[in-house]
Amino acid sequence: MPCTLPASVTLIEVGPRDGFQFESRLIPTELKVAVIQALADAGIRNIQVASFVNPEKIPQMADAEDLLQRLPRRTDVVYSGLALNLRGVERAHAAGLQAIEVSFSASDTHSRKNTGLSHQQALKQGNAMIRLAESYRMQVRLSIQCAFGCVYEGKPSPEAIIKIIRDLDCLGSVAMLCLSDTTGMADPRSVIERLHDVKALVGPIPVGLHLHDTRGMGLANVYAALMCGVTHFDTALGGMGGCPFVEGAAGNIATEDTVHMLEAMGIITGIDILKVANCSQRLEHFLGKPLPGKIYRII
Amino acid sequence: MPCTLPASVTLIEVGPRDGFQFESRLIPTELKVAVIQALADAGIRNIQVASFVNPEKIPQMADAEDLLQRLPRRTDVVYSGLALNLRGVERAHAAGLQAIEVSFSASDTHSRKNTGLSHQQALKQGNAMIRLAESYRMQVRLSIQCAFGCVYEGKPSPEAIIKIIRDLDCLGSVAMLCLSDTTGMADPRSVIERLHDVKALVGPIPVGLHLHDTRGMGLANVYAALMCGVTHFDTALGGMGGCPFVEGAAGNIATEDTVHMLEAMGIITGIDILKVANCSQRLEHFLGKPLPGKIYRII
Repeated sequence: MPCTLPASVTLIEVGPRDGFQFESRLIPTELKVAVIQALADAGIRNIQVASFVNPEKIPQMADAEDLLQRLPRRTDVVYSGLALNLRGVERAHAAGLQAIEVSFSASDTHSRKNTGLSHQQALKQGNAMIRLAESYRMQVRLSIQCAFGCVYEGKPSPEAIIKIIRDLDCLGSVAMLCLSDTTGMADPRSVIERLHDVKALVGPIPVGLHLHDTRGMGLANVYAALMCGVTHFDTALGGMGGCPFVEGAAGNIATEDTVHMLEAMGIITGIDILKVANCSQRLEHFLGKPLPGKIYRII
Repeated sequence: MPCTLPASVTLIEVGPRDGFQFESRLIPTELKVAVIQALADAGIRNIQVASFVNPEKIPQMADAEDLLQRLPRRTDVVYSGLALNLRGVERAHAAGLQAIEVSFSASDTHSRKNTGLSHQQALKQGNAMIRLAESYRMQVRLSIQCAFGCVYEGKPSPEAIIKIIRDLDCLGSVAMLCLSDTTGMADPRSVIERLHDVKALVGPIPVGLHLHDTRGMGLANVYAALMCGVTHFDTALGGMGGCPFVEGAAGNIATEDTVHMLEAMGIITGIDILKVANCSQRLEHFLGKPLPGKIYRII
């Protein structure tokens, strides 16, 4: 029989960032605010609300500052943003955020295509971003994109990931290390192997997972990670975040589907699945297409 | 770290039966023959090709005998059929099938709605069907539907399933016992618990799983079962078998998605995923709608 499962799990809602940014149709700021508030009312305690990136490249995120201004502050919810460079950290701080995700890619090709920087340059910049965020007293989550593979370079060797983590000067300053399966290439076996390596290196720093369901393995990977003691997962309402060019293609693991599986196994999330599903139904209606998640359609 | 995974796994393709029968649009017999042949050419060694049920209730299966007549016999593939009563076993035998699935439901309500028989009546009939198939020297797979829950009665108690298996007089005559998650209600924890109970009861008889992905847990359940030593899973090309009234709603676990996950973990299936995906693309084109599977769309 496999290992004991954790008693409770924390989900970090990334739909308003990783989900929305894939949509070509601009979602009005007021609808974003309403959805984020409803997600908070559903019991989600960590919500990534925007990315502070070039608005010309990602028009959906051009309203980041405006959104933050309109978003009622709550003592029971941590809002966070994503930054890919120092300017992003500055903008997030100026907008009043107290938590930031600093992200860089394990894949050199993906890094160059996504940010114009080599992996080494991005790593150096990542360290500088963490120092800057620290000076602002922001809580930092460090995310390694393509930690399980990338469509350009395939699967990284265990040694490559170990080297990346060893090269992180500022690891001791982060509140969480997140392994990101950006392209949905992780399988349960690789999740277990990677977690085994990484957890041995980072000691007391919590390790979270950011999983995509592109190849249908999302919840299988959650289950594998639970057995390794992981208690923090990124999810997106309705499984948003899929490629906008392939209808129904899977994005992030769906918040509702993840909550449903966890609760079915007796693991507490504190999240009201019906309230989240209502948000997904609202977005499905606005976008005029079904989202990849399953539970929100049948609940 | 969790248990060792098996080195190889056998998939039983149920798309031409459990997948096709949910489609309201009649699939021409010649297309069924072509798809079944292509699946065999892809390396699938067990294919459930039809159910021998009332053609008025399931018009899609009305051509079962005709299909069997047109299907070239191959020494490398076992074709099987599904029967719900003695007449079905007789028809399958007369059509030349050498393998049959005898199926009854663990849920009394589901049994009555599906076959008009109470659970106890269906159990008695199941034993008679197994004896009849045995007299025809047919290989029998016994399937317990709703073994993980049903929408009418919820989840069965472990004791209920244990009692059902103890009441099976003919268990020693079956080649395999299949636990069927007819409505996609199994979760990894319940899979492990049920397998633990059932495997202790059935001794050397192999236990297979028939999983649906209705709630997104299909491959997570496969992974849980692999850790319990299960090496036989039903799958359907493209994840067919979903409810025809909810577009994109998940059906059986998709053959391609399952092969992909297994092979990613180093588990041999002997199946050419591209050839299966070609069949799914062909059916998507014929049916004019996307199927629930993920891999066939992106491979």
